[in-house]
Amino acid sequence: MKEKIEIHTQEIETILKQYLPKEEGLASSVMAAMNYSVNAGGKRLRPMLMLETYRMFGGEKIVIEPFLAAIEMIHTYSLVHDDLPAMDNDEYRRGKKTTWVEYGEAMAILAGDALLNFAFETALKAFVCDGADADRIARALSILAEKAGIYGMIGGQVADIEAEGLGEQVTLSHLLYIHEHKTAALIQASMMIGAVLAGADAEAIETIEKAAYEIGIAFQIQDDVLDITSTFDALGKPIGSDEKNNKITYVTLKGLEEASREQKERSNHAIALLNSLNEKGYQNDFLTDLIKSLITRLK
Amino acid sequence: MKEKIEIHTQEIETILKQYLPKEEGLASSVMAAMNYSVNAGGKRLRPMLMLETYRMFGGEKIVIEPFLAAIEMIHTYSLVHDDLPAMDNDEYRRGKKTTWVEYGEAMAILAGDALLNFAFETALKAFVCDGADADRIARALSILAEKAGIYGMIGGQVADIEAEGLGEQVTLSHLLYIHEHKTAALIQASMMIGAVLAGADAEAIETIEKAAYEIGIAFQIQDDVLDITSTFDALGKPIGSDEKNNKITYVTLKGLEEASREQKERSNHAIALLNSLNEKGYQNDFLTDLIKSLITRLK
Repeated sequence: MKEKIEIHTQEIETILKQYLPKEEGLASSVMAAMNYSVNAGGKRLRPMLMLETYRMFGGEKIVIEPFLAAIEMIHTYSLVHDDLPAMDNDEYRRGKKTTWVEYGEAMAILAGDALLNFAFETALKAFVCDGADADRIARALSILAEKAGIYGMIGGQVADIEAEGLGEQVTLSHLLYIHEHKTAALIQASMMIGAVLAGADAEAIETIEKAAYEIGIAFQIQDDVLDITSTFDALGKPIGSDEKNNKITYVTLKGLEEASREQKERSNHAIALLNSLNEKGYQNDFLTDLIKSLITRLK
Repeated sequence: MKEKIEIHTQEIETILKQYLPKEEGLASSVMAAMNYSVNAGGKRLRPMLMLETYRMFGGEKIVIEPFLAAIEMIHTYSLVHDDLPAMDNDEYRRGKKTTWVEYGEAMAILAGDALLNFAFETALKAFVCDGADADRIARALSILAEKAGIYGMIGGQVADIEAEGLGEQVTLSHLLYIHEHKTAALIQASMMIGAVLAGADAEAIETIEKAAYEIGIAFQIQDDVLDITSTFDALGKPIGSDEKNNKITYVTLKGLEEASREQKERSNHAIALLNSLNEKGYQNDFLTDLIKSLITRLK
């Protein structure tokens, strides 16, 4: 499975490269900072989930490509800004210096802004793709904007910052709000956009939204678990940062064992939801395996 | 004319209010910071130029409204991030505390991100407006993204930062690049979107793009002039900040008199371009007067 994922990651990398900006002109430094940030790596999980959901519903057109690039740009910008000194003040990510350490704070702020703006600029290119369906693209864009914004990912970031001020007072429902918005929302966007662009019906899109929610929460719980149980070498960043920042997590609220159990339960629920679409003729075994592998990932 | 502009500003304010987020939920603090930033005031010049260009070409539908709000959100986010300690480190704007002073750095970064994202989220609502023309809206969105991004406003911000490192070496062409991108691009977006949504033909849109370029450069030169000749009370922020930051401006490169002369020349050229559209039956006297008033503005 690890090799299979690597092949799919390569597929995404090749597409992604075509949509990254050329480093030229008087503003080339920000383009370099954007590319540095995106090329810092990762498994490209969000575009991979998008592409595989698109395929699950029979999609096979180039119209998906601008959206694959866009979702990764949005994910990347959120990391670039999250790492800033005024935010998490992180110096390393995936074993590499974070953008602000490499390019300075001002350029990191602008590179983040640029990636967010360029994500929409890129996704909008879908309108001029061969065989573009304007109605589907408009809906996909709206999902992208909503799930990335104040009712999605940014809302989660903000609730996360608010939680810091609350200390031990943070409730499970507050924590679930953070995970739902900060992590699950972008995974929902990825999978829903894949489904919408492939022409899935409203009921199927709703099932995908629910499955993606479970995947997102499970993914985040695993993040919290790994922050305690992993190593610097495996993660490519310091472990124990949640404890260092006195952060309330699923693990601190429920304990390691219960958190792991719930993570597994949610992953299984996501798989069951996807399997329920089989009878309509929608199936993608790689997508199912990919989601299963998220349970056991070690970094 | 001052009263006329005030009435038009009020018209924009009323529309803008309908599109600002409600302050609710666990992320309400970022919504408050967004609204604080947008409500810090200003003449709403960009949405006003958009609406009046739309009217010049006969536009009268509600479909323009989400774009009026979107352009002001993008303008506002750029100010919020520009004021940050890692950028210009400004504590006052229009006589009020800047967003980071009022809400803290982390929240100001997120509020800026949120405004940029919400601008697209809002503009996308045009697709479900009564009588929406998907093709025009898609083109308007692309103009918005391009003129706000690395090939537009953000590119200008970056070239501006690069210029600081160059000191006295900054050339006129570098300075013109900064003004073209940092200031003129968003004014071009405003007027071009108005024209596109009203269904103007390609030739007319090109004329509008050129006129908006001249308006943008003239507007920026006036900014540089006012930074020397105005007062704190008139501007609502400290004067002399360009000199304080050793900034090369039109005025330092060409002198006050020559800069003022060029500003007037460009404004006149913009008016001539707009007048050239009269023979096609496109006319908006208020728009012409508005642009003329930009020459003589004192704040």
